[in-house]
Amino acid sequence: MTRKKLVLEDALSLLLSAANPLMRQEEIALVAAEGRVLAANLYAKIDQPPFDRSALDGYALQQEDVVKASPQNPICLKVTQKIFAGDFSDLPLQKGEAARIMTGAPIPPGANCVIAKEETNNGEEQVVFFAGLGNKSNICQKGEDVLKDTLLLAAGESLNYAQLGLLAGQGYTHLPVFAKPRVGLMATGDELLPAGTPLRPGKIYDSNSTMLGSRLATLGCEPVFAPHYADDPQGLALTIKELAKECDAIITCGGVSVGDRDFLPLIAGMLGEKNLFLGLALKPGTPTLAFFYQGLPVLCLSGNPFAAATSFELLGRPLLGKIAGQKTSKNRRLQAVAKGNFVKHSKFRRFVRGYYWAGEVSIPDSGHSSGILSSFAGCNCLVDIEAGSGTVKKGDLVEIVLI
Amino acid sequence: MTRKKLVLEDALSLLLSAANPLMRQEEIALVAAEGRVLAANLYAKIDQPPFDRSALDGYALQQEDVVKASPQNPICLKVTQKIFAGDFSDLPLQKGEAARIMTGAPIPPGANCVIAKEETNNGEEQVVFFAGLGNKSNICQKGEDVLKDTLLLAAGESLNYAQLGLLAGQGYTHLPVFAKPRVGLMATGDELLPAGTPLRPGKIYDSNSTMLGSRLATLGCEPVFAPHYADDPQGLALTIKELAKECDAIITCGGVSVGDRDFLPLIAGMLGEKNLFLGLALKPGTPTLAFFYQGLPVLCLSGNPFAAATSFELLGRPLLGKIAGQKTSKNRRLQAVAKGNFVKHSKFRRFVRGYYWAGEVSIPDSGHSSGILSSFAGCNCLVDIEAGSGTVKKGDLVEIVLI
Repeated sequence: MTRKKLVLEDALSLLLSAANPLMRQEEIALVAAEGRVLAANLYAKIDQPPFDRSALDGYALQQEDVVKASPQNPICLKVTQKIFAGDFSDLPLQKGEAARIMTGAPIPPGANCVIAKEETNNGEEQVVFFAGLGNKSNICQKGEDVLKDTLLLAAGESLNYAQLGLLAGQGYTHLPVFAKPRVGLMATGDELLPAGTPLRPGKIYDSNSTMLGSRLATLGCEPVFAPHYADDPQGLALTIKELAKECDAIITCGGVSVGDRDFLPLIAGMLGEKNLFLGLALKPGTPTLAFFYQGLPVLCLSGNPFAAATSFELLGRPLLGKIAGQKTSKNRRLQAVAKGNFVKHSKFRRFVRGYYWAGEVSIPDSGHSSGILSSFAGCNCLVDIEAGSGTVKKGDLVEIVLI
Repeated sequence: MTRKKLVLEDALSLLLSAANPLMRQEEIALVAAEGRVLAANLYAKIDQPPFDRSALDGYALQQEDVVKASPQNPICLKVTQKIFAGDFSDLPLQKGEAARIMTGAPIPPGANCVIAKEETNNGEEQVVFFAGLGNKSNICQKGEDVLKDTLLLAAGESLNYAQLGLLAGQGYTHLPVFAKPRVGLMATGDELLPAGTPLRPGKIYDSNSTMLGSRLATLGCEPVFAPHYADDPQGLALTIKELAKECDAIITCGGVSVGDRDFLPLIAGMLGEKNLFLGLALKPGTPTLAFFYQGLPVLCLSGNPFAAATSFELLGRPLLGKIAGQKTSKNRRLQAVAKGNFVKHSKFRRFVRGYYWAGEVSIPDSGHSSGILSSFAGCNCLVDIEAGSGTVKKGDLVEIVLI
């Protein structure tokens, strides 16, 4: 029963090199695109701003006319035009003239600066300037944000609200994005009951479907729930075959260990495929396995909820990121200072739940069993503890994976 | 035209103390509850796990029977029962007996430990043990995750996937959550055009509706888009009146400064209300104003997109968090080390876009005008630079607000 256990990074490489990005695209409205993965390079359609415009409410003029203005030496100019935001003036401004101008309004030809109305007497027909100008023109230059034809966003970008604002400002209304990966989710185990039914002796409620389904949705996937609670190999194989018809990847929980009814390790063979890996050199999630069914990745996680969540994060998330077409789908790793001690020796590399904030990570004092969820509910990272490294001491620098 | 400008924190206090949490609730399915705000305290309905169960595949027995077992001294016991996950045994185990047991299966009465099958000859009718047991029983104790009647989650919690898994394990199928705040979003300005129309001289596309609408949705609000591009006071007042009928808060962009068509500062008066504040001692977003219309908060932001985004984050987000019923709706602040220099003196307190990662913050070299969005698209925080503090130098500790 002993088999060579795979290192996490090697298992992930195997998975990623065998998985292909989804090619399905769809066209969606900008306002619905937050978090979606862009499917094409997008270029600027226009200069932004499209014209030189005033940065404030004041007067546009030729800087030379007021360069010596001060409270002691007020300078008066004639107001020859008034330009509101949304207007457009092609009337050239002559020397000795000023245009009353509002924030966002186009600079008239001939003007080279704007002076704030607070530096003037706010005149309508004539205006008196009590100050010249420092080292800025108060003009937002045409194209200073974006020049036409610039690459705005590259395919594979996960879109955020500022990017969407940028695209809206370019006149985009719709975007090509990759379809959300459809991910089959099969919780298994004779001991499982769906919530909402009476609890019977020896049974527990299925928590993994809800937990991983929620996580999948947050990560931009569409979960397809297909619990198959009976531990029978034919039924499990059939459920995977059915899911494969409509899904881009399949995640299962339970039935992966060495128990008499842990059938998942046999399913690849029943389906005419081979296991890609079976058994990882880490805790929790040692019995994790994966195979491909007709090119479709099937990742089989432990039924213990914390183990399932951990293996999903370390393997499933990068896998689905690649399938989703994301430019980068790596886990976000960084170092943090341990806020307390964690005394638990382990022969194996271990991932422990923690809460990261501002450079420090807290590890709960107890509740580290892989069946325990309550202590995980307030956590936001996994601490990666090397095999044989023993205890973590307060102040130690540890490596973490953000969830 | 000079008025006393309010400090950000004072403006926020005014807003928060006048705003009331939404009381509307709805009952939703667990799988749809990620990010929603819990509306009631939830207690454990059952012990979790509901019974003592095996942590692994092996044999349940009385520890005393195998305490001296070793490879040199194998000990043989009779296998009197076989318990799968999902089964339930009330047959007591006697001294000298073992029960073949699977991960997750209930421990039979009389047994006090489980020995992994890897430490045995894996026998069916009799089993030989080559090892006793270290300091653990391999039994997950009834209630070790959660004891019945424990407070699981308090009202005001924003739900994450692990919490939802915890609740599913308790048999919850639906939850009471607060309704999503409906937030009216009115972009204004004669210069604005909706995307999808031809660009005309002097005009720009409305980027704020898309940008803030996306942000609102991400924060768990329901944006109600009501652009009113014409700079006419009656129209603006009417749009706010209409939005107030169906919204829980209103955000506007544009028309807040001192230009001849900046009418927002007058609207509260037209509606029989008073401005709560008008003008903040910070950049960008100096002309930000707020009032309450019939008890409904109306937050009026600058039309410059980066200014709108910043003021929204500093004022709008905590405001909407309170309205949404969140336990904590404060901005997340922390200190970070500047990765480079930022040379821009300012009389005013200034919020500058930045990218935070692993304790360090990068500030873009250029593109800090409040009309510029492109350099903001890759940012994830705002750096809070004190009035008069001048430049930020590489290695300086600065205060940031995470977006």
